[in-house]
Amino acid sequence: MAERTSTRSNGRASRRAFLDATAVLLRRQGYAGTGLSEIVARSGAPRGSLYFHFPGGKQELARAAMERSGEQLRRAIGATMDAPGGPRAAILALLDALAAGLEGSGYRDGCPIATVALETAAESEPLRETAAAVFESWVDELARALQDSGMERAGAQRRALFVLSAIEGALLLSRARRDVAPLRAVREELLLGLG
Amino acid sequence: MAERTSTRSNGRASRRAFLDATAVLLRRQGYAGTGLSEIVARSGAPRGSLYFHFPGGKQELARAAMERSGEQLRRAIGATMDAPGGPRAAILALLDALAAGLEGSGYRDGCPIATVALETAAESEPLRETAAAVFESWVDELARALQDSGMERAGAQRRALFVLSAIEGALLLSRARRDVAPLRAVREELLLGLG
Repeated sequence: MAERTSTRSNGRASRRAFLDATAVLLRRQGYAGTGLSEIVARSGAPRGSLYFHFPGGKQELARAAMERSGEQLRRAIGATMDAPGGPRAAILALLDALAAGLEGSGYRDGCPIATVALETAAESEPLRETAAAVFESWVDELARALQDSGMERAGAQRRALFVLSAIEGALLLSRARRDVAPLRAVREELLLGLG
Repeated sequence: MAERTSTRSNGRASRRAFLDATAVLLRRQGYAGTGLSEIVARSGAPRGSLYFHFPGGKQELARAAMERSGEQLRRAIGATMDAPGGPRAAILALLDALAAGLEGSGYRDGCPIATVALETAAESEPLRETAAAVFESWVDELARALQDSGMERAGAQRRALFVLSAIEGALLLSRARRDVAPLRAVREELLLGLG
């Protein structure tokens, strides 16, 4: 019984190690540039268990990793938006946190979804759909908080799309420049512009 | 003499065909997912001439293609910004043109630089630098027009970074969704927000 529990727990640990490794590599270098061997090496988990956990191989692993990264960030967005101070202060706090994370990682950790989304939008319908669903969950979280603060539904949805667009673009430009000036510019302009 | 001219002109045509094919493939699927064989096949040019024109191989080809796409778009941004109506109307026109281009290409043709920028920011310093220089040239074009319309230098630079961030993020989200709602949301919000 103890042995079975331990096997199960090793299995869960391997599954999580594969997902962690995949999430990091997708975020830093994208889908096409990430090979299964690199994922296995980084995970430290036994290669033989990869297809047991992810019979669909790299694509299934990528989708699961994107969903998990997406859900983690959705919760972080929700928690930030629900902090006292209202959605305007929360959006500025979110930009500060993203800038700190990007700088702190040596400009490697931007959006965990964006690279794969762009690479696969025209190439893989399952990966595109996964990326779209994650982005949608973030938009919904922003829009919900904006509605809670009194905006009407359509306006909140539009504002949420706008804010996420500005954030995603600023993460992209900041990574390319190795400099958080775009994130800071978005922060300043939203500070002036958000009612 | 006639033969030499024709050889030279075939050489130029091959060079351009390689660059055109590379630009399309980088834009649609990124750097890691694009192989030299695919570039050669799409170009229709003789494989043997690829290393004659681009001795540095795929990376040199990618940099040259990104620089060319970047320069084309820089000129288009400049021409749009210089049209009568001022920078506010021009930015809205730019968003309309990008939305039309994206829809018209079946959501394949977004930003020609963004995918490679994200894939290679942490992986290849030459490609990162090329992407950063192209983005910078677009920011400069936007900032110049904003300054011409009376904004002070630092404000124009910040506004330009903000506008390009919003555009890049909206192109990314629109591609993932196969729906131009993010580009339209940015248009609406900038219409309300830009003074």
